[in-house]
Amino acid sequence: MKKEKCKSIELQEARDLIIRAAPVLDGVEIGLAESLSRFPASDLLAGEDLPGYDQSLRDGYAIAEPGKDPAFVIVDEVAAGDTRKLSLEPGQAVRIMTGGLVPARTDRVIPEEQCRVFGSNVCPVEGASASGKRFIHGRGSELARGTVIVAKGREIRAEQQILLAGVGYESVAVVRRPRVSFFCTGSELLSGSGQSRAGKKFSANSHLLHGLIALNGAEVANEQTVKDVPEEVDQILKAMQQSGADIIISTGGMGPGKFDLVEAAFQRAGGRVLYDSLNMRPGKSTLFGTLGSVLFFGMPGPPPAVHLLFNELIRTAILALQGAASCSPQELNAILTEDMAQFGSGGLPRLKSGLLSFDGGRCLVRAAARMEAANCYIYCPGNGQSLTSGTLVRVHMTGSTQGCF
Amino acid sequence: MKKEKCKSIELQEARDLIIRAAPVLDGVEIGLAESLSRFPASDLLAGEDLPGYDQSLRDGYAIAEPGKDPAFVIVDEVAAGDTRKLSLEPGQAVRIMTGGLVPARTDRVIPEEQCRVFGSNVCPVEGASASGKRFIHGRGSELARGTVIVAKGREIRAEQQILLAGVGYESVAVVRRPRVSFFCTGSELLSGSGQSRAGKKFSANSHLLHGLIALNGAEVANEQTVKDVPEEVDQILKAMQQSGADIIISTGGMGPGKFDLVEAAFQRAGGRVLYDSLNMRPGKSTLFGTLGSVLFFGMPGPPPAVHLLFNELIRTAILALQGAASCSPQELNAILTEDMAQFGSGGLPRLKSGLLSFDGGRCLVRAAARMEAANCYIYCPGNGQSLTSGTLVRVHMTGSTQGCF
Repeated sequence: MKKEKCKSIELQEARDLIIRAAPVLDGVEIGLAESLSRFPASDLLAGEDLPGYDQSLRDGYAIAEPGKDPAFVIVDEVAAGDTRKLSLEPGQAVRIMTGGLVPARTDRVIPEEQCRVFGSNVCPVEGASASGKRFIHGRGSELARGTVIVAKGREIRAEQQILLAGVGYESVAVVRRPRVSFFCTGSELLSGSGQSRAGKKFSANSHLLHGLIALNGAEVANEQTVKDVPEEVDQILKAMQQSGADIIISTGGMGPGKFDLVEAAFQRAGGRVLYDSLNMRPGKSTLFGTLGSVLFFGMPGPPPAVHLLFNELIRTAILALQGAASCSPQELNAILTEDMAQFGSGGLPRLKSGLLSFDGGRCLVRAAARMEAANCYIYCPGNGQSLTSGTLVRVHMTGSTQGCF
Repeated sequence: MKKEKCKSIELQEARDLIIRAAPVLDGVEIGLAESLSRFPASDLLAGEDLPGYDQSLRDGYAIAEPGKDPAFVIVDEVAAGDTRKLSLEPGQAVRIMTGGLVPARTDRVIPEEQCRVFGSNVCPVEGASASGKRFIHGRGSELARGTVIVAKGREIRAEQQILLAGVGYESVAVVRRPRVSFFCTGSELLSGSGQSRAGKKFSANSHLLHGLIALNGAEVANEQTVKDVPEEVDQILKAMQQSGADIIISTGGMGPGKFDLVEAAFQRAGGRVLYDSLNMRPGKSTLFGTLGSVLFFGMPGPPPAVHLLFNELIRTAILALQGAASCSPQELNAILTEDMAQFGSGGLPRLKSGLLSFDGGRCLVRAAARMEAANCYIYCPGNGQSLTSGTLVRVHMTGSTQGCF
């Protein structure tokens, strides 16, 4: 069967289509401790001031305005956790611990190493801090009630988790994790364990997708290996659609040949193709479409291409389904440290695995060798010109590094 | 009780002590799909060649040396997954699919779009690739049997997972994840849900540590909140030691004051203090020691300090317990884009939350504002001089970004 080409589009256009097609998923209440890297279902506000009371920053003495005597009379002791609301008279002091509630009408807190105690009296030593608020963490000084701590569309980060805990969140409503099902096509794929045999190979994509899905904050709903047989692909597509996946991914079965069967099966299942080719290598044979409310990605077979297209496109879908404000890989410019040939020179831009490093305030990059674990992709514009050492090239962040800058 | 100071040391010296004290944990066999970011228990070698057989890279025709006729007779068809070992005679060809096993005595594979087929004969078109190996992925060309794919001490990355799958790994032996128990001290801490009350605060450290432990590849074994009472701290230390934790962390109870009780309890429990002060802020009051084979960290109370010291020291312990070759945060130099005061100027170096960004091949950094989620720490040497815009400063990576460059 000769397939009708839908259209071939640019990478950013592909991302825009994905973002527009992705519905934001339901919210779910989870413990604050599990909330790192999740996206809130709505703005998370400070429901109270932080700190909620005037807090001592040191073990020492809270002293009032001076009375008649130069020394202050120690009238009480406030441990951390003591909830009594004391009030001082002029000339009075209380012993106070770090975190303790500063009594009303306290003039200042003096750390104990700056105090001289004799009997039930205390005196600041010469040179003791005279600044009233220096050792008091004032109510609301960190966060005023009503402040947005994490806006919808932004990931919850550790700093914000601290603030959320501070104002009393024990749980938060976040968008649920997208559920991803995938199937790897190819009669040559071995499944289960067993010795490799000439003509058969192991499905690297299955292992790879497992890891990438988890690393990017989604969940594996279901996975299968299928033969290059239209009926098997029809069946698996139907089963995965019914199992409640938000995203379905296939690998293989996308090249222009006799066994190019995924697009046909997708169309038989009622899928709507949004693109089936990118103006880019890898990605010339890759499909995105919708099957009801499910997002479908038809990926090529080679695992390095699956890895790259996951980073550039499927991660975008996972973020968009969680309502993320920014769904594209982080990009930056870096200085090429080695000449780089533009392979193929077929006019198509190419993304090539690279190694980004930093030196003396500069961002440096070079193409990764075959066995090296890359940390970025280098954009080669495909104009046939070689990229020479010293040139500024466009770099896409990968995996866990992106989204952090 | 006046505590005897052990010694105050530099950050890198502290890391070296931690690394020396950390035993490498046992190996455990896990599925390859779960192996991303784990550390292998021993070198992972290629047990066979990759690919394991000569593989066609295209749908097309595998042709032999020419026979008498210019056309080749199509004698068979090889699908992907077909394990028959065919051999060609001069003048013969087979139809072959991408991934198919290339027959013996094949001269070259010609993609179908470069072939003309008439009946049972095939001819390469004019200009068809004459290069023998161009569309053949030769046996062992990617990886020769015996090659180290992941060396002990190195994290398993996606690229390597692909190669491991390719040579038939279904599972791998990795070092087990460190188990971390922690307790937050402070009578002022509220535990469980409930309204905040003046004098009480929520334990941000508990939530924070949960997230940081998981993010850094370890597991939470046990957690508790305890009052500032020596007996409670004694009990919890004993219980956590017996519960099989590899690391125990406490927060709070470390300042020089009446309720500074963690170090005393640690010593009563038989702990060996390796340092109890760093020449750095935060970290002046922080302890590291061993309790039998357990690593113990006494952290200060403020959550931002816990966050920072986790990044700088506890992460080192988590990596060292897994046998990682590199256990320190990634460092780089960046150009300061705003003047930065050196707080305190007490002579102690300081790490300050920062925001790293990239522009035109340069690494830029500035101090983070209070509510901003930082992505690095800026090293301030503590010599009292202001750091001015344009200066090159030392930056430590944080969280998920480190280890990637």
